[in-house]
Amino acid sequence: MGAAILSGLLTEILIPVAAVVGIAFALVQWLLVSKVRLSPEKPAGSRDGVSDYLIEEEEGLNDHNVVVKCAEIQSAISEGATSFLFTEYQYVGIFMVAFAVLIFLFLGSVEGFSTKAQPCTYSKDKYCKPALANAGFSTISFLLGAITSLVSGFLGMKIATYANARTTLEARKGVGKAFITAFRSGAVMGFLLAANGLLVLYIAINLFKLYYGDDWEGLFESITGYGLGGSSMALFGRVGGGIYTKAADVGADLVGKVERNIPEDDPRNPAVIADNVGDNVGDIAGMGSDLFGSYAESSCAALVVASISSFGVNHDFTAMCYPLLISSIGIIVCLITTLFATDFCEIKVVKEIEPALKRQLIISTALMTIGIAIISWIALPSTFTIFSFGEQKKVKNWELFFCVAIGLWAGLVIGFVTEYFTSNAYSPVQDVADSCRTGAATNVIFGLALGYKSVIIPIFAIAVSIFVSFSLAAMYGIAVAALGMLSTIATGLAIDAYGPISDNAGGIAEMAGMSHRIRERTDALDAAGNTTAAIGKGFAIGSAALVSLALFGAFVSRAAISTVDVLTPKVFIGLIVGAMLPYWFSAMTMKSVGSAALKMVEEVRRQFNTIPGIMEGTARPDYATCVKISTDASIKEMIPPGALVMLTPLIVGTFFGVETLSGVLAGSLVSGVQIAISASNTGGAWDNAKKYIEAGASEHARSLGPKGSDPHKAAVIGDTIGDPLKDTSGPSLNILIKLMAVESLVFAPFFATHGGLLFKIF
Amino acid sequence: MGAAILSGLLTEILIPVAAVVGIAFALVQWLLVSKVRLSPEKPAGSRDGVSDYLIEEEEGLNDHNVVVKCAEIQSAISEGATSFLFTEYQYVGIFMVAFAVLIFLFLGSVEGFSTKAQPCTYSKDKYCKPALANAGFSTISFLLGAITSLVSGFLGMKIATYANARTTLEARKGVGKAFITAFRSGAVMGFLLAANGLLVLYIAINLFKLYYGDDWEGLFESITGYGLGGSSMALFGRVGGGIYTKAADVGADLVGKVERNIPEDDPRNPAVIADNVGDNVGDIAGMGSDLFGSYAESSCAALVVASISSFGVNHDFTAMCYPLLISSIGIIVCLITTLFATDFCEIKVVKEIEPALKRQLIISTALMTIGIAIISWIALPSTFTIFSFGEQKKVKNWELFFCVAIGLWAGLVIGFVTEYFTSNAYSPVQDVADSCRTGAATNVIFGLALGYKSVIIPIFAIAVSIFVSFSLAAMYGIAVAALGMLSTIATGLAIDAYGPISDNAGGIAEMAGMSHRIRERTDALDAAGNTTAAIGKGFAIGSAALVSLALFGAFVSRAAISTVDVLTPKVFIGLIVGAMLPYWFSAMTMKSVGSAALKMVEEVRRQFNTIPGIMEGTARPDYATCVKISTDASIKEMIPPGALVMLTPLIVGTFFGVETLSGVLAGSLVSGVQIAISASNTGGAWDNAKKYIEAGASEHARSLGPKGSDPHKAAVIGDTIGDPLKDTSGPSLNILIKLMAVESLVFAPFFATHGGLLFKIF
Repeated sequence: MGAAILSGLLTEILIPVAAVVGIAFALVQWLLVSKVRLSPEKPAGSRDGVSDYLIEEEEGLNDHNVVVKCAEIQSAISEGATSFLFTEYQYVGIFMVAFAVLIFLFLGSVEGFSTKAQPCTYSKDKYCKPALANAGFSTISFLLGAITSLVSGFLGMKIATYANARTTLEARKGVGKAFITAFRSGAVMGFLLAANGLLVLYIAINLFKLYYGDDWEGLFESITGYGLGGSSMALFGRVGGGIYTKAADVGADLVGKVERNIPEDDPRNPAVIADNVGDNVGDIAGMGSDLFGSYAESSCAALVVASISSFGVNHDFTAMCYPLLISSIGIIVCLITTLFATDFCEIKVVKEIEPALKRQLIISTALMTIGIAIISWIALPSTFTIFSFGEQKKVKNWELFFCVAIGLWAGLVIGFVTEYFTSNAYSPVQDVADSCRTGAATNVIFGLALGYKSVIIPIFAIAVSIFVSFSLAAMYGIAVAALGMLSTIATGLAIDAYGPISDNAGGIAEMAGMSHRIRERTDALDAAGNTTAAIGKGFAIGSAALVSLALFGAFVSRAAISTVDVLTPKVFIGLIVGAMLPYWFSAMTMKSVGSAALKMVEEVRRQFNTIPGIMEGTARPDYATCVKISTDASIKEMIPPGALVMLTPLIVGTFFGVETLSGVLAGSLVSGVQIAISASNTGGAWDNAKKYIEAGASEHARSLGPKGSDPHKAAVIGDTIGDPLKDTSGPSLNILIKLMAVESLVFAPFFATHGGLLFKIF
Repeated sequence: MGAAILSGLLTEILIPVAAVVGIAFALVQWLLVSKVRLSPEKPAGSRDGVSDYLIEEEEGLNDHNVVVKCAEIQSAISEGATSFLFTEYQYVGIFMVAFAVLIFLFLGSVEGFSTKAQPCTYSKDKYCKPALANAGFSTISFLLGAITSLVSGFLGMKIATYANARTTLEARKGVGKAFITAFRSGAVMGFLLAANGLLVLYIAINLFKLYYGDDWEGLFESITGYGLGGSSMALFGRVGGGIYTKAADVGADLVGKVERNIPEDDPRNPAVIADNVGDNVGDIAGMGSDLFGSYAESSCAALVVASISSFGVNHDFTAMCYPLLISSIGIIVCLITTLFATDFCEIKVVKEIEPALKRQLIISTALMTIGIAIISWIALPSTFTIFSFGEQKKVKNWELFFCVAIGLWAGLVIGFVTEYFTSNAYSPVQDVADSCRTGAATNVIFGLALGYKSVIIPIFAIAVSIFVSFSLAAMYGIAVAALGMLSTIATGLAIDAYGPISDNAGGIAEMAGMSHRIRERTDALDAAGNTTAAIGKGFAIGSAALVSLALFGAFVSRAAISTVDVLTPKVFIGLIVGAMLPYWFSAMTMKSVGSAALKMVEEVRRQFNTIPGIMEGTARPDYATCVKISTDASIKEMIPPGALVMLTPLIVGTFFGVETLSGVLAGSLVSGVQIAISASNTGGAWDNAKKYIEAGASEHARSLGPKGSDPHKAAVIGDTIGDPLKDTSGPSLNILIKLMAVESLVFAPFFATHGGLLFKIF
């Protein structure tokens, strides 16, 4: 067993340096975005010596007024988003404190709050820190994860609402400038999140080590609280934000577009500000928390598996930090990749946007493969041993490289399959659009069928990754495969966040009464963003599947179960009930969106009917009431699905024990991943089928249009149905599967000691 | 271990007698139905001394012409259905022969086609018949099962097309008479199927015993071919019939109701005959084959588990025949139950129909509980031993009674939950109807959410049954629980078949131009049938879940796997891919319905546009072309989903081995049952939400209507989307899960010997 090339000291330096570089890069990007001034400009820019050409001036609009109006709208959106997030954070703050107490009590009770050192779980001959200490440190790391998650979401929202109006203004100068502004802002969020996540985790590990010393088992067991904290905040962010954004969107569309026949984002629509706020709290803050959660969990899963299996036992710190090193190199790789979009290449025409974004994925994946190879070579001993459910397994460093790489590339495969099924450049979406000829019913039938079909290849990709990485390095292999899929998270998030920013930019252009040519440019940015958003969801779901399996594996090890045999009734009932949970959860969230949308519809109708002059544009609608409806509805409605996810592992573990809980985890994983993928893709396909008809870019598309034709109306119905599927229930499901797994892992010591009450009684 | 009270001889007599009684009862019912003459009657009946009151006469229509027209339409439907089934049977006939050869070759190859006796699999000290004999007898029982299934479906279709016009004519005399005619015809089908299934199985066992003698292991292993045969025919029946009926239905509705604004079943619609034929080939023949398959499989599962675990080893014939005795007593119980509907009570007004049907379920369940208690007491030793995956388990006869009873009652719970979620008497469907106010999109969102939510209680009911029956009597407990759920199959089928017969009767009334009061009566019969159809589907799915688990358990025993550990990568990839299969299958079948419906739409539009006088009713539409389109489309489209289901176990077993196959079975079971329930209930709820608005029976319903209002149009869209969900993909999924399990069981000896090629090579 050879030692690693990279010394412990260098590891200690490399990780924080990478994180700091990431944060610095994010700040530079923010600085560049801030150069676009939200106040009327002096004679249009002369940077590069080329005089920028402003559409507005040519068309005789008063530039000064437009800029002022953009600034106004931006601040309304920003205020709405900030106020919602603060309200949301008050509620989740209470939850956070309550749950922190729960963690402390449950885990502290494992050894009856004893302060004496205990024999270690895995090395019975050694003494480890008492369970009470683990309880305390788990609670601290839970809080750290939760706060980092909230900060990530909040910062993302801030930069997005800072950048949206600036993107609109830049769109006057050309599509390339607007693209760079939106993309840079996305990058701010991506890098801040990836770097912060890494840095906080790294600091926590080092601080905890001061107490734990050589007891790595306890150290990394406590660290898993970080993943739980991140993910539980993500749940509320995703669900609350998802309900908010879709209630506003569906409500605005149903009255505005369908009943009143006014365009999207028309300032006469009372729900229009709520709709734009929604993009920021749902698609930006919610998604940011979600991906931070995935990242935190996959890191924790890899760390805890390693701590109880191989490097932890040998106290090889560099190898132990392999997951963090992968993330560090990921930040550097993404930094280089970002430069390709913002500096090395320049976008000149609309149709270059989508290829530019796809190129980001390919470049980052290719570079990252090299990065992984280097890290695997320098940070790992050439051969090491992994303990896998009681057996020992020799692993070579290049085998672990394969595990990470297969996760990374499986992510790319899932991304491209998602693109194929949701982009209107390919036949699946075109077929769905074509089925609108015979009405909304066939559109829905074809759309659902498309979503179901789009599951096939991603599942095979996940299955192959699991098989290969497990065969090479047992559960540790799966954990690092998940990490591989998430290693380019900074780029992935930049691309993801870019979409809602462009969407908002278009909304601002419409509301500020800017030229339609501006709107066309922002629409083109947005359409590309739709596809990349679907790709991002594909990544999120794929990685969630791998992460949960790794967490599940860690849970099983920690709970000291030797097998999870489907043929025992305890496990099987868990499996079938677990497979049901995603349906229950989806029913709740979809119904919530529906009910909240109905309330919104009533309010918007009321305003149209009672405020005179609203349709003529002479009276200002009451935007604030719509914002309040969305806020109240989402806060109220996020509690039941949140409770379902958070309480299930606790109830099952406490009353039915660890075997049944294992079944529940496996069942919800294999069932949830399918619904999540199909819901996201069905929704994405309907959205783009509508856009395909609206854009009318081909002979076929024109035969279905124009806007307002019967096929287009059918397509709008499909799009509206897809909203809760693709932006609320679908993406929340990957949090469901991850969160239940990480929660089970954190509470595993308690369940193993006190769980299964019901079976003990009877 | 006490001996059973019932002697072997009495068992040998009791089973065939019950079967013959069932067949005789069916024939009597047929005779009673045939008394309604399909030729103009003499001065209206004077049975009971009361002169029957014919609506037609009062309204001045020429009775003679109406009756002749009904007879004509009936024969057109009957011819269409017969011709489709013959075409279908030609294709499945080829498949049947090919698959029979495959079974023989695969199973024969287990011991290299040796004709020498071999040591038994379970009792190594004894000698059993050679694998070649098992191969031969498995092939024979496969063919027997397949033929019985086809005959059951065909006879069901025959009686249904015989009874539909007779129900229409009886509706002139009153709703009670029409109800009895439709219900009796359903009973003919129910009893013929249950009794035939039992009789053929019983005869096969006795004939096979002549060769096998004391080798019960081989005997009952071969008998499982019967279940495979029944279920594989059911697959093609369900899928082919489902595509046929929904292509015609959706096609007829989209042009007729939506575009041309003519009522349902209007004779001017060219697809109207195809639509009515579809009810008979899909909902009658397809469903008959499906439930026969469930019945055959659960019997075989119970028999094979018993043969290798307890009674088989002790050669206790009466106890061994316990599953058949349960079915025998079931026939008697259902016979008594039927009399409550046809003779003891009389229906006078419309609103008594649904309670009368529900009473059937409750009476049969209550009586059957007593029946099971008696059989368990007289046919079982007071204590016996079950072998469960290498362990021995003492079981008391009353414990086995509990297993059967819990299955029976879980079925009733599932039935009532289904009713709650799909009947428009309760709030869920009313909420869905209410959501139509804001358009089709909210209707679809609420409908999907309803379907997801309706999964919760049935899954808990199934989980509890599994847990209790497994805890009491291991896999044998689960097998008999499934049998318990299916023990009242004759009544269940009678209720199920009653629905499409009433539906057809309404269609015939419309086409024959009879009074609207007739149509109202048949509509009332049909509406009650919609709910009971949903209940029937609930039973089918619930029992499928239990049956598949029992078959899965038998497969695992037979394939000599000791555990199916989710944490081995071979099993886990099977699990996740298995959970994906129902989505793949649904995508195929839904897309098939969509494409076939599009073809139908084109043809119907073509006829409306090119045949002059068709809208005025002066020219006869070309019904035959529409029938041909449905036939061709369904035959062509049933092959890919059929191949997916039939080939998956073979490919996985041969190349990946029994562990992965176990994973696939468990995954498809836990995932498929959820989609099947939610798809059925979503579709049923949409259908009844539409009917709720149309009927306008309450203040709330009237505020949404009338026909043609915007909410009603939105409801029609939901109904159309629900068609393929509830009648094609949903109900086919329970065949998918059962069939893959029984196929794996039949091929288990082959997989255990030669399977897992891929892992052997690498």
